[in-house]
Amino acid sequence: MTRVIVAGAAGRMGRRISYMVHQQEGLTLAAGFERPDGPELGKDLGELAGMGTLGVPLADSFETVMGQGDVVIDFTFHEATMALARKAAKAKKPMVIGTTGLSPDNLAELAELSRNFPCVQSPNMAVGVNVLFKIARKMAALLGDAYDIEIIEAHHRMKKDAPSGTALKLGEMVAEGVQRNLDEVGVYCRHGIIGERGEKEIGIQTIRAGDIVGEHTVYFAGAGERLELSHRAHSRDNFARGAALAAAWVVNQPNGLYTMFDVLGLQDI
Amino acid sequence: MTRVIVAGAAGRMGRRISYMVHQQEGLTLAAGFERPDGPELGKDLGELAGMGTLGVPLADSFETVMGQGDVVIDFTFHEATMALARKAAKAKKPMVIGTTGLSPDNLAELAELSRNFPCVQSPNMAVGVNVLFKIARKMAALLGDAYDIEIIEAHHRMKKDAPSGTALKLGEMVAEGVQRNLDEVGVYCRHGIIGERGEKEIGIQTIRAGDIVGEHTVYFAGAGERLELSHRAHSRDNFARGAALAAAWVVNQPNGLYTMFDVLGLQDI
Amino acid sequence: MTRVIVAGAAGRMGRRISYMVHQQEGLTLAAGFERPDGPELGKDLGELAGMGTLGVPLADSFETVMGQGDVVIDFTFHEATMALARKAAKAKKPMVIGTTGLSPDNLAELAELSRNFPCVQSPNMAVGVNVLFKIARKMAALLGDAYDIEIIEAHHRMKKDAPSGTALKLGEMVAEGVQRNLDEVGVYCRHGIIGERGEKEIGIQTIRAGDIVGEHTVYFAGAGERLELSHRAHSRDNFARGAALAAAWVVNQPNGLYTMFDVLGLQDI
Amino acid sequence: MTRVIVAGAAGRMGRRISYMVHQQEGLTLAAGFERPDGPELGKDLGELAGMGTLGVPLADSFETVMGQGDVVIDFTFHEATMALARKAAKAKKPMVIGTTGLSPDNLAELAELSRNFPCVQSPNMAVGVNVLFKIARKMAALLGDAYDIEIIEAHHRMKKDAPSGTALKLGEMVAEGVQRNLDEVGVYCRHGIIGERGEKEIGIQTIRAGDIVGEHTVYFAGAGERLELSHRAHSRDNFARGAALAAAWVVNQPNGLYTMFDVLGLQDI
Repeated sequence: MTRVIVAGAAGRMGRRISYMVHQQEGLTLAAGFERPDGPELGKDLGELAGMGTLGVPLADSFETVMGQGDVVIDFTFHEATMALARKAAKAKKPMVIGTTGLSPDNLAELAELSRNFPCVQSPNMAVGVNVLFKIARKMAALLGDAYDIEIIEAHHRMKKDAPSGTALKLGEMVAEGVQRNLDEVGVYCRHGIIGERGEKEIGIQTIRAGDIVGEHTVYFAGAGERLELSHRAHSRDNFARGAALAAAWVVNQPNGLYTMFDVLGLQDI
Repeated sequence: MTRVIVAGAAGRMGRRISYMVHQQEGLTLAAGFERPDGPELGKDLGELAGMGTLGVPLADSFETVMGQGDVVIDFTFHEATMALARKAAKAKKPMVIGTTGLSPDNLAELAELSRNFPCVQSPNMAVGVNVLFKIARKMAALLGDAYDIEIIEAHHRMKKDAPSGTALKLGEMVAEGVQRNLDEVGVYCRHGIIGERGEKEIGIQTIRAGDIVGEHTVYFAGAGERLELSHRAHSRDNFARGAALAAAWVVNQPNGLYTMFDVLGLQDI
Repeated sequence: MTRVIVAGAAGRMGRRISYMVHQQEGLTLAAGFERPDGPELGKDLGELAGMGTLGVPLADSFETVMGQGDVVIDFTFHEATMALARKAAKAKKPMVIGTTGLSPDNLAELAELSRNFPCVQSPNMAVGVNVLFKIARKMAALLGDAYDIEIIEAHHRMKKDAPSGTALKLGEMVAEGVQRNLDEVGVYCRHGIIGERGEKEIGIQTIRAGDIVGEHTVYFAGAGERLELSHRAHSRDNFARGAALAAAWVVNQPNGLYTMFDVLGLQDI
Repeated sequence: MTRVIVAGAAGRMGRRISYMVHQQEGLTLAAGFERPDGPELGKDLGELAGMGTLGVPLADSFETVMGQGDVVIDFTFHEATMALARKAAKAKKPMVIGTTGLSPDNLAELAELSRNFPCVQSPNMAVGVNVLFKIARKMAALLGDAYDIEIIEAHHRMKKDAPSGTALKLGEMVAEGVQRNLDEVGVYCRHGIIGERGEKEIGIQTIRAGDIVGEHTVYFAGAGERLELSHRAHSRDNFARGAALAAAWVVNQPNGLYTMFDVLGLQDI
């Protein structure tokens, strides 16, 4: 049984991670901590996660609970994450990082630190999204140039960038599959007399509406048929479950920096 | 039993109209004609339409068969259509026109001619598309400003304009439903840091791929839910069937110019 | 400004209703109450709903806060709801009831009580679902027998009945639109050599998977085209927003028992 | 340039194959034949396929044109196909067979004959469908038991069996991916109080409506997310293009019996 420590366990994401760790076979929710000034210190992790009392109180620092777990999961904030990574590397405690917004400098430091501990880092830990990336690339490679590729994504009305980072990554993956460069073939606007579609184009179109969590579809359309591959996020639970899987996996790895592709065995697809 | 004459009955669209007229209860495929130099003159209409022998030979002009039918259907070319409309008006023979590309002058002349005969004219005779237009406007009116409206359309790779005329008309219909002006609120491109969605925006996005006949979806997305209304064309049979319905309807109307909204009883929706 | 009282305001649904009432223009979250033994008594309604402090403490009974509001919303439990309805009728306080599982006896009593106060009662208050019902019936009536009707629904893996109550209601609405009786034409199983589809059939098929909140699609498929009308629930917020709309509406009505069709002006569609 | 002979070149499917062969880079439409009593004998293959005159007349037997081509494509009827296969094997002429309804005895004889010539045989030659099968199995294997698998298929109203053969094959492929047996876990009917979904179930649901050519979707739904993989046939052109690809491929193979998985390089996926 792998014992898991959750960083930021009173936060919105931390609570869902606690929940998913507790659900996951082979994992135990061993401990959780917050900043020393957190208002929830001492509360029960199970109650915070809305799943009854577990008898595991929220601690005030990593150091307090470090000995109680085999791996630590962090979805907090880049500064807090980097500070924790330094401690985890020193303590040789495996770590899973889902924090977004890490800078190139942060990533370089992580690569350096990972000589001393195994660490999984990925801005999108959803199992389904990682499978989407690899399967889409595979399909592009199999179907080849006879199938036109288009991507459509939909997100809630508050999202400020378009297309989503996930849609762009998806575009890169399919472009790779047909040996194109998305910078050259990506088409984001179609309005007016645009003429016949370019053979190599990869269209990426954007929907913004309501409170849609996030949806991505790739079309492969050829003579008399088409294939569609879609991912729909229902909630943030997909990130939390990915983190739980990564935690179970990373404890058995040699030192090094890994992604969800490694965790999910997707590297060779 | 209403007897139908098909103009351009050896053409691709004419053949499908013959087929649908023959299928439609209450209609008889009475006659069909082509230009006097057509290579198929004298062939059987049923064989041309791929449904066995009917004993109705392809004639060489409207005049030849005028007396054999109660109504004439025309999906040919704007010049031929206008010439036929003048003859039909004179003969007081009801007419159904599905020809696209009629000019404002053509339409003005048709309005004038229709004082003498009943005539249905519509650039898209598909029943489903006309229902789509009216139902989408109705839904927009019912749901109101709390639901974001987005449209996505998909067509084959050869289509030169974007969005499709049908998508633009659909945009106008939903804009009407929420008392907006599509010219002011239509958004066709989203790329880069676009900021939060404007409350009144109506996004229209365009997919071009493979040999997709034509698909249109409207999203209405609000708090915790969304509605989607889609139309998918499988073939040109939807136009032909609409024309058959219009033929059955127009023979009982007073002189005047009508649209498919009239034929389908959709004016008050 | 209409002042709203929320029954069961510390419950999961009550919290979302508080949130939606606070968001809704024209409404004020005036008060909320729980059972006298509730552990959250005295806590701030805004904090319970996760939207900051509002200065409105959770009360211990309807009587305590009755004078502070113009209307009461109840999504609790049928026994508690009926007890509250008796008090609200006596006090002539308008009421909105979203509680499910009311018995025929409960409904009969409500009808009787509603002589003394205006009351909206509906097992599904989602605006979108109610629009779906009426629009689907309208589309069925417009498209008629030439379009085959099929329904597909999808829900999470824990749901015990199939098809969903909403899918069955949807089936009744479209059957009504084409003047059929769902009891005679509903088809729920297709397996083996089933032969050609019956012309009047309405197929209702069921997907059970993952944590899908609830999705319903109606197909209308005819010659060369089809229309699809879908509703997708993202969360329970659609119920809460429907309740807020009903509260704003019911305060201006004469005594009587109403449904969401009345609130949304959908009766004549 | 590979020279192709089309069997049954005046039939509906034969004409589309001629068309696709002509479109395909690296292939030449070299010859076509029909039964000696065919009414179209001597007509131009290009005209029969609706693509202008090619100067290739329809012949009356395989023997007449055998020397003009490198490979023969057959989508006719099982008896005609087997007779042709015996001749092609003897002549060591590579062959592509898309004929459906071959019996186990036919297949056994083909395996025997293929010692003498290379032959591709597959009841569904659509590239997309074959990719669908393999990718669906792969996704099932990657996502594993934490994702519920459901299949939904839709076909036109005339189809007599349910679910479609393609849906059943798809079910077998995903079952293989998660090491289950479809015979044990396939669920085809859900009606009434069915209880919570079984963990291992694979639901297969069937839509019958209008003139839908054929659509298949697999859902993989887990915690907070789902993936959907769909295939939509627009016309029979997908079969014809698959046959053209198989013809280009088979001419370079050693003697033996192959499937589209071999042609498309999908065996190891």
